[in-house]
Amino acid sequence: LTRSDGPPAGPGTVRIAVDLLGGDDAPAVVVDGALQACGADPEISLLLVGPRSVADEVLGSPFIGGVTAGPGHGVLVAERRVDMADSVTRGADPRTSIGAAMRELAAGRVDAVVSAGATGACVAAAVMSVGRMPGVRRPALTAILPGANGPVVLLDVGAGMQVQPVDMVQFAVLGAGYARLVGGLDRPRVGLLSVGAEPGKGDRLRRAADAALRVHQLTSATYIGPVEGHDIVTGRRADVIVTDGFTGNILLKGIEAALAAAATRYPPTAVPRAAVLLGVAGAVVACHGAAGGADLASGIALAARLVRTHAIDRLAQARPSRHTEVAQ
Amino acid sequence: LTRSDGPPAGPGTVRIAVDLLGGDDAPAVVVDGALQACGADPEISLLLVGPRSVADEVLGSPFIGGVTAGPGHGVLVAERRVDMADSVTRGADPRTSIGAAMRELAAGRVDAVVSAGATGACVAAAVMSVGRMPGVRRPALTAILPGANGPVVLLDVGAGMQVQPVDMVQFAVLGAGYARLVGGLDRPRVGLLSVGAEPGKGDRLRRAADAALRVHQLTSATYIGPVEGHDIVTGRRADVIVTDGFTGNILLKGIEAALAAAATRYPPTAVPRAAVLLGVAGAVVACHGAAGGADLASGIALAARLVRTHAIDRLAQARPSRHTEVAQ
Repeated sequence: LTRSDGPPAGPGTVRIAVDLLGGDDAPAVVVDGALQACGADPEISLLLVGPRSVADEVLGSPFIGGVTAGPGHGVLVAERRVDMADSVTRGADPRTSIGAAMRELAAGRVDAVVSAGATGACVAAAVMSVGRMPGVRRPALTAILPGANGPVVLLDVGAGMQVQPVDMVQFAVLGAGYARLVGGLDRPRVGLLSVGAEPGKGDRLRRAADAALRVHQLTSATYIGPVEGHDIVTGRRADVIVTDGFTGNILLKGIEAALAAAATRYPPTAVPRAAVLLGVAGAVVACHGAAGGADLASGIALAARLVRTHAIDRLAQARPSRHTEVAQ
Repeated sequence: LTRSDGPPAGPGTVRIAVDLLGGDDAPAVVVDGALQACGADPEISLLLVGPRSVADEVLGSPFIGGVTAGPGHGVLVAERRVDMADSVTRGADPRTSIGAAMRELAAGRVDAVVSAGATGACVAAAVMSVGRMPGVRRPALTAILPGANGPVVLLDVGAGMQVQPVDMVQFAVLGAGYARLVGGLDRPRVGLLSVGAEPGKGDRLRRAADAALRVHQLTSATYIGPVEGHDIVTGRRADVIVTDGFTGNILLKGIEAALAAAATRYPPTAVPRAAVLLGVAGAVVACHGAAGGADLASGIALAARLVRTHAIDRLAQARPSRHTEVAQ
């Protein structure tokens, strides 16, 4: 690894490592997104992690649309990429762009990481390098959707495929904390994604999770019971909706595609293609593999916001308690 | 039970039992839907199953919007209803409207049943009264969505919460047969709903189902591997998408709500709120619990179409083989 021009950490400046090799259309869209983000927020200092040639191209000027990354940005050379078909543990290899970026975060040399690479590898790299928040069994990729009655926090949207009821309780704690800190909600209503509003609906996992959520006393949040697929869109019943990463991923992509197909009213950016990884001890933002430049830019802006509001540190204080840790 | 005016079975006439007590807004929307369906298709003969007073109201004329159910319709009195909170086995009780309707179907006195009542009760009543198609382990509620590149058959959307890989193979067989018979597709492409297009993605069930689908030779259909949540909306990759009833239900409701929220381009009827129950030995159509009159009418029209095209009988001939029956 070669390090050059480490990003400065001036007051107000947020240092964000960007994975140049993550995403279906990397590095082109990542470069595009990085430039858009810098154009919109001059207080961002990027660490471009990837092949030397690509990073240099971003730092060169003048650039696409007249926007340049300008000075104050750094490059970390990592030539290897993690493909969708690779084992997720490859993400922990510091010779890969995602592995190298996570190591910088773990070492405190950047404040956040943004990647549109393979979700599994991003999660594995975050867990192995940065570590989980104390007490958290399983991190959850967390999206905020534009419900008709206000934003709806949905988690997990893809970090974990096999979850236990106790994980759902932890997701409720993490999601409610996120809704308070980032969504500005005082006492969020938390729902469990299922197939009917009546208790007892759904599969075994949902019935067990519903029981666990009823027993567990959420702090500064209210568990309102099972909600349905349409409640994500309306936002009428719950502010935070918890589910496993398999179901959440499929639902998010389905809604996203439906809104894109009917994009006359909703601009394509209305459904975020960037999600924060809650439950790890650092600010990690994962973008959709098919993310475009604007999505990457929104992911970088989200990372900057998380850092500036100290959201992750504050969330760690409201982290799942020992009670949720052991409850089953 | 009191039977009056059994519907005649003239040539071309389809006899459909309608559950007057099924649905959040029953009987009002069911009555509305029944009248709309009769207005649109005079060759439908309804058997109205529910409280005497409601049935008589439908048969009285003149009626809402000047449409009357007219002569040639029948009434079957069943005063009890199955609520969402009831045990699903209550659906088999012939004193309930859904149980009585299914008994008529099992006895051959009607050609199809349409209900917007609790899905679990409807499925249980169908399985217990009409029975499964030979070889079928688990029936699947099957919807056709308007993909941008043509219709997409999605199953299961809510009949079964706990499924095995072998069920997914059977869903592929049933769904492909339905796509051929009703969608007019010659050799449908079948996809497995998951979180990534690469083999090996998803949870344990998906990995096992993917392997089972690769081993099993579909007749007159092609298994193309895992597809994602957005593929339902675009229809670009697969014509038939198989999943468990939990995931399918949540995805269908999410897409439905997203399109309704962005209803400027798609009329609300674009996403069907009626689904056929494939795998039982009779024509059973289940409508969404929150179905409106137009949804009920479309469910009745779908039932009539299934009967006229002999879709269920023809599907039974292409039913899952002994091979899928035992494969795991």
